[in-house]
Order: sequence, then structure tokens, then C-alpha cells
Amino acid sequence: MSKYNDLYNHIKKQINDGQIKTGAKLPSIRKAAALFSVSRTTVQNAYFALEADGYIISEPQSGYYVSYHAARPTAENAETEIRTPEFDFKSGGADNESFEFDVWRKYMKNALRHSERMLSYGEPQGEEDLRTVLADYIREKRNVAASPGRIVIGAGVQSLLGIFCSLIENRGTVSFPDKSFIQGAGLFSDYGFDVRYRYKDAEIIYVSPSHMNARGDIMPNKRRIELVNYSAQTGSLVIEDDYESDFQYNSVPVPSLYALAGGENVVYLGSFSKLLLPSIRISFMVLTDELAEKYKKNIRRYNQTAGKTEQIALCQYIRDGRLKAQIRKTRRFYTSKAKAFALLLSDEFKNADVEISENALQVILSLPFSKDPGIFQKAGIAVSVENFDGKNITLIFNTGAVGQKNFSSAIKALKSAIY
Amino acid sequence: MSKYNDLYNHIKKQINDGQIKTGAKLPSIRKAAALFSVSRTTVQNAYFALEADGYIISEPQSGYYVSYHAARPTAENAETEIRTPEFDFKSGGADNESFEFDVWRKYMKNALRHSERMLSYGEPQGEEDLRTVLADYIREKRNVAASPGRIVIGAGVQSLLGIFCSLIENRGTVSFPDKSFIQGAGLFSDYGFDVRYRYKDAEIIYVSPSHMNARGDIMPNKRRIELVNYSAQTGSLVIEDDYESDFQYNSVPVPSLYALAGGENVVYLGSFSKLLLPSIRISFMVLTDELAEKYKKNIRRYNQTAGKTEQIALCQYIRDGRLKAQIRKTRRFYTSKAKAFALLLSDEFKNADVEISENALQVILSLPFSKDPGIFQKAGIAVSVENFDGKNITLIFNTGAVGQKNFSSAIKALKSAIY
Repeated sequence: MSKYNDLYNHIKKQINDGQIKTGAKLPSIRKAAALFSVSRTTVQNAYFALEADGYIISEPQSGYYVSYHAARPTAENAETEIRTPEFDFKSGGADNESFEFDVWRKYMKNALRHSERMLSYGEPQGEEDLRTVLADYIREKRNVAASPGRIVIGAGVQSLLGIFCSLIENRGTVSFPDKSFIQGAGLFSDYGFDVRYRYKDAEIIYVSPSHMNARGDIMPNKRRIELVNYSAQTGSLVIEDDYESDFQYNSVPVPSLYALAGGENVVYLGSFSKLLLPSIRISFMVLTDELAEKYKKNIRRYNQTAGKTEQIALCQYIRDGRLKAQIRKTRRFYTSKAKAFALLLSDEFKNADVEISENALQVILSLPFSKDPGIFQKAGIAVSVENFDGKNITLIFNTGAVGQKNFSSAIKALKSAIY
Repeated sequence: MSKYNDLYNHIKKQINDGQIKTGAKLPSIRKAAALFSVSRTTVQNAYFALEADGYIISEPQSGYYVSYHAARPTAENAETEIRTPEFDFKSGGADNESFEFDVWRKYMKNALRHSERMLSYGEPQGEEDLRTVLADYIREKRNVAASPGRIVIGAGVQSLLGIFCSLIENRGTVSFPDKSFIQGAGLFSDYGFDVRYRYKDAEIIYVSPSHMNARGDIMPNKRRIELVNYSAQTGSLVIEDDYESDFQYNSVPVPSLYALAGGENVVYLGSFSKLLLPSIRISFMVLTDELAEKYKKNIRRYNQTAGKTEQIALCQYIRDGRLKAQIRKTRRFYTSKAKAFALLLSDEFKNADVEISENALQVILSLPFSKDPGIFQKAGIAVSVENFDGKNITLIFNTGAVGQKNFSSAIKALKSAIY
């Protein structure tokens, strides 16, 4: 295990055990480096990872503090202690209003009629007809031009990243400049990669340009071009996790990194959890020519993880234009929800700043607040704290999974918690 | 990459490129060690891996030879060149006769009615109700006593092994004494483990006691007890892949290693592909207490890969006793198929030895034969060659996926290929 990982685990344990209390300031990077006899880079990486994981928050010009999140029970006790929040503004789940479940059921039932196909193992790479349909779909939608032979289907992005890692012989450096997707960082670390945060200079750079952080910021065009140029110059491989690219609100449409780079040095990842159902575990990965060739050489080593029934259903669903219609509908639906929630917040909290995120899935509320942020959880509200300095707090509400009919009672609960 | 892997790849490439021809003898282990400037162990491991992967065969007292399998097109060209065999006796697929598909469809349709459950992400560990049902099921069936909290569900054994690897901090040695499950060996190697074949002295020992090899041999009780004692003495962790444990023919029922070891130092793997449909990707892993605790500490790092619809359907299917009935039915069905096929072979090949495998899924035919074994493929018959010395050949027929109504035409094709 790497040193930063040891330090990360050490501090995490101290936080979980209550040896470092919520709100306590951590030693500065320089002091911690001396204290633990490690380099400053090691401390920095450990702090970034703790921050990305919600254990600490950084206050510019001040230092690192134990986040109120850390007060949550540790995972061991999680099953018994965490109660389901009444209003879950942290969930990435979907709103049942946004999805025509009956239509999907129909496609699943049709897929279940393909008896002969259901009776054999699936293609390790994913069903060929689905890969063909996906190739057309991403070419049209994101200008990602790739043959079906370069597409690998899997149950979730993590399974696909496992395959990706197995194709990279030299386990070098991988960076997560936006500190997004900590699960991916853990996976790369398990495969022996040296995981970094914030730094661009790594052999592999992992980004989610359409959902860079909890706030849902979208990577600006300028940074996209910079990144693609950097990759072309240095030979770094960019993994573009196009998570939530279908959602945009304020900004002008942005091209995919894959398209900007002309498909060179970019591995593209896509999934459908926000568009369809979170319980449908189908993601896909577009490999570079070189990696696709390696994959095919070793294809006997891989098994398909995504269910065949759902692959067959999704293929027909896309063919019939249902996915496109669903994207339009979902985008309108979530944008109108976020707007409605923002309006209610503005009405109820006169001294607050209310903002809608770039991807129109989050609403950000900043207002004076000096209580224990744990009160939100006690009030049955799960919400992300982006910033809290004892005087002001910034909360991020993911309005996706909370039904609009519950907005006013959620805001009532929020008000009585705050005042 | 390890040295043996380099050597493995080097020889594989030479075989694929035709530089070493089918039937050619490889240099002895001692000669190869000198030739490639590596240790004899390295050569031995590479040869074992090549053998397990079907590239070479070992002839006791003689040496290693390039298998006729190696004549198959390389994976790159596989898509265009391999034609689907008319009679596939190599497939692990199921026979449509053995499965009441209509019943499963009903359970899937019922599962799809659980709208609320389908609209949220699944539990990373697997749906709790399914884990509870599985705990009861394996306690009753295999005397594997474990709480649902120690069970992790995933889409296929490989996904689960990825999770297992991430829980092992010290990437030490892992052995595959039966040279089974080469896909697993590749995965462990990717995670930085030192993979060995045949040797017992490793920190992790991977076995499939109910399906030790292509022939479907079952691990004798004596060896089970030896292995469990060895593990207790050395602290080695045993991974018991209980693949096809529901199938037995000749032998008396054998206990699971997990039960023999009292649940100590054994990780148990189970799956349903042979009982239900190969396209249903649900497997499960029973972790030791220690590993389960680690898993729970890091649970936020893992996503569920198995589909929720299928998990819900399977849970109810087991609850209703359908799985037990299916096991009884499948066992009878495959045994009677193997018997019927063996009988036909005995009738048609008077000078041959015909045998049914211990798990009653394979039929083994040995007879004089001096042609090119490639003729089977040309005749539309996919069959495993266990042994071929230019005079006699031993073929393993997996009768699972070929319909009984096609047996006589398969044997007709076989006869005209052989004579």
C-alpha cells in the first residue's frame, strides 16, 4: 500500500473513533509531514483523498477541518444506525415521475421472449446488436466515432474500469484532478496504480467533464482544449467519464473530449443510470484502437457482467427512439424541478443566495448559519454541506430523487432546523 | 508483469503466429530455462498456464506438445473466422429443455412490478432479502453457515474476485492447483498477485472441488480434509468455488470445504448459471468475518453489478422452493442425457472406451485415432481433446448444451469424421 493511503487510513480511523472531533483543525501540510515523517506530497494526497471522501473540508487561507460528515456512524454500524432520511437531497437516484416504467417493462417482457438468446452465455464484450446501436447513438449525440468492436459493455463503470486496468501493463500514475469519483481512485489503487489528486501530470487522467464535483459544474471549453492538447503533447491517456452529459442548464453545449481529441488517447465512458433507472446496470466503454486490440487478444479472460435481458431490452429501446425521447423529457423534467425548488427556497429564505447548478440537477443554498450541521440529518434531511465556517453554510440539494410534491414539507423541515 | 507471464505470452504468440506448429514438441523445462535465461519454476509456471489455457498438452514421461487447439484462429480474427459449430460439446451453456422459462418469466415480471425498488440504486452488497434467502439456502444445502452480512452478491464470479482482491492488502501468492479457471488466474495476476499452478504452498489457494477439470472430476474427501488441515496449519486462505456442486453421478455426496473447515479460512463462491440460465449473471461470495468487516468499512467503494430485477426475481424463486425443484430436475435431466449419449457412443464405436464423468455432465470417449484433430471442427463438432498422441485420442463431450434430439446426427457426423 502507498504511504498516502496509510496516512489516509490513519486519519480516517482517528476521525471515526472520535479521537479527532468534528470541526477540529488538522495540522497544516508542512506540520503533518514532519509529524508523520512523510513528504508534503504524501500529506497533500492524503488530505485530498479525505476531502474527496467527505471526511474533511478545506477552508481557503485557513486550513483543513474535520467535516461534519465525519460525525456519521462508521460503515460497520451503518446498517443499524443510519435511518433513511425523509427528504434525500444527497441521492443520485431517479424520480419515478421521470421514467415511463410501463414502457420499459414492455421492452423487458419482449426481451424475455428471446428464449434462444437467454439460454446461452452472453458475449463477453456485450451483445453485438446493442454495441452496434450504441456506436450510432454516441456518434450522433456526442460525436464519438467508434466501431462496435471498440465498445465494451459492463454492469457499471467500476466493472469496466477493472477491465481497463487489466489492459494497462505499466501500472504508473493516475490522477483525478477534480477529486471526483473516489470509488474509481480506490480501484486504480488496488490495481497498483499511484493515485494522485489535482495534478495533471500523470500517465492517466480521469475526468467527469459534465459533472466535475458535487455542485455539478461542467468543464469549460477552454479547459477541455487545454486537457486534450496536454494529452496530445505528453501521451497521457484521458478517461472521459461522460456522466450526466445529457444535463445542462446555463451553459452552451460543450463537445466531448473524445471528439475534441479526434478519438486519440481518450477512453470514453457512458452510462444510463440517470436517464433510465438507477437499478439498470448498463454502462459502456469506448477503448482506443490499441486497447481494443489488447482486449480482443485476451477476450477469453473476460465475462460479461451486464444482464442479457436488459441488454436486449435497451437495444430495442434505443432503436425505437425511446432513449432520445427520454433524454428530452428527463432534461425538461429535472430542470423544471430544480427551478421550482430554487423558487421556493428564495421565497422562504430571504437572506440567502440561491443558485441552480450548471447541469440543472442541483440547487445551491448559501445563508448565515451557526448551529451544528448535524441538525439536518436529525430533521430527516440528507443534504451535502459544501462549505461551513461556523457563520455561513453552503448546502447542495440534489433535487433529483425527491418528489416535487414533497418540496414544501422538505422546506418546512429545513426552516425549522435552521431557525 | 511477472517473468512467467512474459514467457507465457512469448510462446503463445509463437504458437498463434504458426512459428511453432501443432503437434510440435516444446523444449524440456530444463532446456527452456537455459534457453530463455529464467528459472525452471518460471518455465514450469508458463507451461502450466499454457496447458490450462489449451495451448499445449503434457504427455506424461514424454514432454509438452502444441495442442491442436492452438490451430484455432487467434482471438483477433475470431469474429470472422470461427463458425458456430452445429454440435457444441464444449459449451457450458444450458439445454432449453431443462429450464422452465415460463416460470422464470413470471418471476421477472413480478419483480418488474416493484416500481419503488427499481427506482433506487441497489445495495452495493446485494439486495438484503436475497442475501437472507441465500444464507438459508447454503446452510441447508452445503452446510455453509454464514450471516447475510457476510454474503456479497455480484454479476459473475470474476466481479466478486475483483472485490476479494481489493480486500487483500498483501498481494502475495495465489495457487490454482487444478489449473482450473484460468480467467481467475489472470485477474489475480492483474491485481499484483504471484500466480502459481499445481503448488499448494501459497497464501491463497483457489479450488473448484466439484469441477476440478474439463473432465468434471470431483475432489475426493481425503484431499478435501488434507487441504483444510493444510490451511489450518499454515493460515492459507482457501477460495472454494463451488461451481456445479449440484451435479454428481458416481460418487457419494461430499461436504463443502467451508463446512469441513468450520468456516475458518475459507471464502465460498456460488453461482446459478448451470441451474437457471447462463444469461442470469448472479453469483455470490461468502467472506470470512475478517474480510467481511473490511468490506463493510469500505462499502462506499463498491457498486453492485448484478441487476436488481433479477435479484428480486431470484429471491422469490428460491423462497417458493423453485430452485430446489429445479436442482432435482436439472440433475435428473443432465444425468439421463449423459447416459443416453454414452449409450449411443458405445453402440456406434465398438473399439472405444466410453465413460461418464463424476458430475454426470461430461461423456469421455477414448479410441484409436491418427488423423488431424482439426477435422472435428471442420465437421461442425466442437469437442475438447483431453489427450492425443497420434495413435489414440480422448475426447470430452459436454452434453449439456446439445439437445438430445440432435444426438444421433451428432454421432453420425462424428463417425464420418473419424472413419
